[in-house]
Amino acid sequence: MTRVEQIGLHEYLAQEVQSVDRVLNEWVPGDTVEPAIIHRAMRYSLFAGGKRIRPVMAIAAARAISDSPAGIENAAATLELIHTYSLIHDDLPALDNDDLRRGRPTCHRVFGEAIAILAGDALLTLAFEVLSRLSSTEAERRIRLVEELARAAGTVGGMIGGQVCDLEGEGKRPSATLLESIHRAKTGALLRASVRMGAIFAGASKQELAAISEYGEHIGLAFQIIDDVLDVEEPSEALGKTAGKDEAQQKITFPAVYGLERSREMAEQERLAAHLALRMFDDRAERLRQIADFIVHRKA
Amino acid sequence: MTRVEQIGLHEYLAQEVQSVDRVLNEWVPGDTVEPAIIHRAMRYSLFAGGKRIRPVMAIAAARAISDSPAGIENAAATLELIHTYSLIHDDLPALDNDDLRRGRPTCHRVFGEAIAILAGDALLTLAFEVLSRLSSTEAERRIRLVEELARAAGTVGGMIGGQVCDLEGEGKRPSATLLESIHRAKTGALLRASVRMGAIFAGASKQELAAISEYGEHIGLAFQIIDDVLDVEEPSEALGKTAGKDEAQQKITFPAVYGLERSREMAEQERLAAHLALRMFDDRAERLRQIADFIVHRKA
Repeated sequence: MTRVEQIGLHEYLAQEVQSVDRVLNEWVPGDTVEPAIIHRAMRYSLFAGGKRIRPVMAIAAARAISDSPAGIENAAATLELIHTYSLIHDDLPALDNDDLRRGRPTCHRVFGEAIAILAGDALLTLAFEVLSRLSSTEAERRIRLVEELARAAGTVGGMIGGQVCDLEGEGKRPSATLLESIHRAKTGALLRASVRMGAIFAGASKQELAAISEYGEHIGLAFQIIDDVLDVEEPSEALGKTAGKDEAQQKITFPAVYGLERSREMAEQERLAAHLALRMFDDRAERLRQIADFIVHRKA
Repeated sequence: MTRVEQIGLHEYLAQEVQSVDRVLNEWVPGDTVEPAIIHRAMRYSLFAGGKRIRPVMAIAAARAISDSPAGIENAAATLELIHTYSLIHDDLPALDNDDLRRGRPTCHRVFGEAIAILAGDALLTLAFEVLSRLSSTEAERRIRLVEELARAAGTVGGMIGGQVCDLEGEGKRPSATLLESIHRAKTGALLRASVRMGAIFAGASKQELAAISEYGEHIGLAFQIIDDVLDVEEPSEALGKTAGKDEAQQKITFPAVYGLERSREMAEQERLAAHLALRMFDDRAERLRQIADFIVHRKA
């Protein structure tokens, strides 16, 4: 019996989240290290009950390739550093101007805008420091991880590019093309990079990496569709952030373009395509399959 | 006759600036690449007549170690990406709230705050992408460069840490200890990293790297002292930024703690110490020596 069968998904996720949190706690200085205020701000946003979905996906992808990819949680944690920096900056008054994130006041509401901007910068910078110092991994592989993360977070088809398109798109007529290009970059690129980084870390072959990338693309799109759907369907309380903001800000979303029912159908298609992409893998990829299901069927 | 003797410092600097600008132009997408607005904002701040002092120092350090370190201008350019990102974010209303930089309106005055924040993020991210893709350098060395840059730009003794101390220090009683800890981190760390990265790129021995680091520390301090002095002495026009802002914002500066005359003396001491640090090098380090003189004797 494989380990996958031994424990359920939720228990498994909780375990992985713990291991990611442990290394994040090691890498991010505590508030005994000066300047304390910036480390407090970084930790405030980092340890705010995030689901750690990106690191968990990286670890699951690494385990689909290799039984015991030692130290993978360090590489995986860098995805959470990037994700958290992007949330802090997105929430700023000049961008989404959000007061609430994961059920708590946003970073700039607690620490002020200046520290929030610098805390985001610091998390982004730290992600690359961590990758450079992965002691368990050969230099060639570490460099590939740096490149993967930097591209996924960048302007050309990456996270920042998507964020810019999103800003520019506010108030424009929602079109399917614009929608897809925004989300492929804004959330898709980092989710795809998550599984790719896991696979690269674990020494995936070209063919394996291609399959994992395809999985990542489908799951990235599914994730965003469901995020948009939940913004319409769920109350703020369940989301831990201000619900209905997309509509209020005239964001281009899947429900706005396709309606709720069709959006859910599309997410289901992506889920199935993600499963199909994994057909070359044995049951070591079972967690990736379960995560695909979890992402599409989640309630928050 | 060595090349150093053939052309004067200013012509030499102009040549190196050109080679740095050429690679920056290659690495930063033009505004034909979507989303155009972010690339325009990045380029607006990057090509604003900066002196490229950090890349030039990196190249000079590399040439002190090795005659022809091929591709060094690419590694060197990443220092300008980091420096420019830090200027864009420092100028934001929530931080220094500056309208003028290098004689032109600051990035957020032209592109708005949201794009300025993201342009800074993008330059920071791109710096690491460039390092990961240095084709002329083995992976082991590229990873050391990533680590060097990330630490110098980070919170613990690095640029962001210094920026936070600077913000926290505004209006506090200026003390010599606070002053030194701010500047060692805020500008010193990146200047020190500049020469270290050049030396690492060129394959410096441990002993050579130690000497170059010592040079970098002295020159970093000298640079900041003179920066503070010029903020008092020179009109805005010559500086290309708002002069006298340090005093207006009650920043902790060298003239505020030591007075102008003693500050200039201290810079001169640091210049001499920088020369002394280079005693093990032959005339291949001549440009580094000239740059030390240039930094202390400059007028803007």
